[in-house]
Amino acid sequence: MPVRSAAPRRFGPATTVLVGYAAVVGTGFLLLALPIAKAGPGGAHPLDALFTSISAVSVTGLVTVGTAEHWSLFGQVVILALVQTGGLGIMTLASLIGLAVARKLSLGSKLSTSAETQGVGLADVRRFIVGAIAVSLIVEAVGAVVLAVWFATAGGFAPLRAAWYGVFHSVSAFNNAGFTILPRGLVPFVGDPVVCLVLSALVLIGSLGFPVLDELRRYPRTPLRWSMNTRLVLWGTVVLTALGTVFVTAVEWGRASTFGPLDWPTKLLAGFFQAAQTRSGGFSTVDVGQLDDATLIVMDVLMFIGGGPAGTAGGIKITTFGVLFFILVAEMRGRSAVNVFGKRLSRAVHRQAITVSLVAVGAIVASTAVLALLSDEPVDRLAFEAVSAFATAGLSTGITPDLPPAAQALLLVLMFAGRLGPILLASALAVRVRPLTYEFPKERPIIG
Amino acid sequence: MPVRSAAPRRFGPATTVLVGYAAVVGTGFLLLALPIAKAGPGGAHPLDALFTSISAVSVTGLVTVGTAEHWSLFGQVVILALVQTGGLGIMTLASLIGLAVARKLSLGSKLSTSAETQGVGLADVRRFIVGAIAVSLIVEAVGAVVLAVWFATAGGFAPLRAAWYGVFHSVSAFNNAGFTILPRGLVPFVGDPVVCLVLSALVLIGSLGFPVLDELRRYPRTPLRWSMNTRLVLWGTVVLTALGTVFVTAVEWGRASTFGPLDWPTKLLAGFFQAAQTRSGGFSTVDVGQLDDATLIVMDVLMFIGGGPAGTAGGIKITTFGVLFFILVAEMRGRSAVNVFGKRLSRAVHRQAITVSLVAVGAIVASTAVLALLSDEPVDRLAFEAVSAFATAGLSTGITPDLPPAAQALLLVLMFAGRLGPILLASALAVRVRPLTYEFPKERPIIG
Ligand SMILES: [K+]
Ligand SMILES: [K+]
Repeated sequence: MPVRSAAPRRFGPATTVLVGYAAVVGTGFLLLALPIAKAGPGGAHPLDALFTSISAVSVTGLVTVGTAEHWSLFGQVVILALVQTGGLGIMTLASLIGLAVARKLSLGSKLSTSAETQGVGLADVRRFIVGAIAVSLIVEAVGAVVLAVWFATAGGFAPLRAAWYGVFHSVSAFNNAGFTILPRGLVPFVGDPVVCLVLSALVLIGSLGFPVLDELRRYPRTPLRWSMNTRLVLWGTVVLTALGTVFVTAVEWGRASTFGPLDWPTKLLAGFFQAAQTRSGGFSTVDVGQLDDATLIVMDVLMFIGGGPAGTAGGIKITTFGVLFFILVAEMRGRSAVNVFGKRLSRAVHRQAITVSLVAVGAIVASTAVLALLSDEPVDRLAFEAVSAFATAGLSTGITPDLPPAAQALLLVLMFAGRLGPILLASALAVRVRPLTYEFPKERPIIG
Repeated sequence: MPVRSAAPRRFGPATTVLVGYAAVVGTGFLLLALPIAKAGPGGAHPLDALFTSISAVSVTGLVTVGTAEHWSLFGQVVILALVQTGGLGIMTLASLIGLAVARKLSLGSKLSTSAETQGVGLADVRRFIVGAIAVSLIVEAVGAVVLAVWFATAGGFAPLRAAWYGVFHSVSAFNNAGFTILPRGLVPFVGDPVVCLVLSALVLIGSLGFPVLDELRRYPRTPLRWSMNTRLVLWGTVVLTALGTVFVTAVEWGRASTFGPLDWPTKLLAGFFQAAQTRSGGFSTVDVGQLDDATLIVMDVLMFIGGGPAGTAGGIKITTFGVLFFILVAEMRGRSAVNVFGKRLSRAVHRQAITVSLVAVGAIVASTAVLALLSDEPVDRLAFEAVSAFATAGLSTGITPDLPPAAQALLLVLMFAGRLGPILLASALAVRVRPLTYEFPKERPIIG
């Protein structure tokens, strides 16, 4: 199958990914629908089982039922397995698709240069899969040990329980899944620097994506060898997280329902934590539903942009936004070429970035309008859930459990489409054969 | 001055436009602040006078005070003069800037072909100004006569009053200004086909922009000679208005607070009227504040897109959206060139369209966040007013009069920026000298 994916014949990589994801989601649904998956008597409602399975596999973290209360230990293990499968799956498959794209471009066009393909194309299939599994397990293991020890000591949980909490939250964080099984969620840990910083670090590392992690491992001390992809993702992560931290902290500083009662180091920690989670971790140490409307708007934007490509992060991806941003900068400065960190941006990428962004905006706006027809909740909160679902961020104002089934079903479709859509769309666009048999005369309409 | 604008030396066309607009706004503000401009005793509050002056000159139509009640006949005449000046000004100046852009492109680059510049550049300055004034006055006169006769007969108003209402609303509609001085607004005319269709026709004709009107006049029966600009604007107007009509009518069909009590022909008329006004007329025959949240979202999108360039319509312009749309289509179909109606789209325009759209989205999102900090109104309604202001559409859910002064001031800035920003930005981008002294090696990040 990996060979097929890399050199598609009958089944393109898109089909492979779709079928694979659907199979995992189906398995998860069946397991979660079993009575032993649910805490207490009876089995879970089918929509809850399906929603949770898709939310876990797409590493979103939106829930219709509380993960800690609704599911048994068996159910929680299933969720964690789905998260790990979904996260690893997207990492390896997206990287494989990148490989296929790079090969296709190398063979079928004149676009191939070492600089272009180094981000995704020089290594072989096996190295990608082994690498992704290795980096996942190593980072998750370190996170799990630190969290488990802390939960057992400072948290006062029994050793076995602390270990399970450590494993669950480390895996959930690195895969940007946002599921939590702590009895009262993460709100009690708003001022706990170890939990907040470890979870944030895991989320941010996971959100970089495998191509970036792979390059950082290979050339940790030679930034000059980093690809444009790596530089865009790293800079984007720093800038977006920093701006988000400043904005969230400033707006929430005095609000009685959120940061008001906290001392100032905790305010800063909480601001940083919430901002980092938009990359698209999905944990929250404050009640997101109580945040200021302005904060929710900014978090919408941050979630929409998301994290790095070919990883567990969602959104249109930092690179896509970065391309649009640097086009803007080039236009404003009157440059004829769009240069990013000393490299010229391929023109074909301009149009791919426009396409991915337009489709994403269209999906979110249309979904929000439909949600507004289905529910009486405030539109900005419905928009927040739609963005969170499409960007697989998983942050929630808390309205999802109470939405009508049709609205939950729409969110479910958004999670699945948001997880696979941009990747499949962008790769399909990139490998497209572009026949150029004739050219029309050129013309320009008036812009603006 | 026209010569200067066409061949700028010391003062670029942007400076000329800005200074000219500021001068007209200032004059309007001073006149509206006079006690005789206000109905009843005392003078208007300075913020109301400034807001109304900017709203009139930018042909937006958002108001902090009711036009019918708050202003005297003198005040209303001032408002109408500001609307006419603003509308004519933007038509002629935008066309002149287009001319300057076309000349600059002709002289300074290899981009000049007859096909490229025919939309804006072949005629001389005098013809543009005379043509814009002529088309405005003719269309407005026809509209005024029809409306005046109808108001005097079916409406039952006294002849002089009917004539004044006819002139005011015809000028207000053609200039897409959205001001109304009818005692109870246009709501009583929701089922009046003459008023609704005449006002819609005036708004839609005005929204096409002078370059389109000029081409339609010169080649009324030879669509093959129409430029890409004209085709985009005409098709866009038809498609957006039709989609808007269907959506608004369907969603509002049974709502008790809006279309529910109406018979079905009136529902259709009201749906068409509301949809047409997003092009950016700004009249409404139903209480916009009572429309379904989903309708407001769709109207946001329609207002954001707006009308044709170099006219009285606002928004990013149909052409800008059309460019993005056809880039999407070309990508989806795997085309190497973006073709629009049998012509190839100039690549430089891709980036201009991205830049204008990104700046517009950024301005609206940022403004909405700030409005959310300043006001407790629901975010989607604040967003509606922000879109309406930036797109100079003038539709309102009714919250603007009650917003705090700082929020009103922000809307005021949005109206001014929305009126001049896209035009000046796009023309500045188009005439920019693009030095190409060296090229970086090409590279592509991962999109999506
Ligand atoms: K997530
Ligand atoms: K208007």
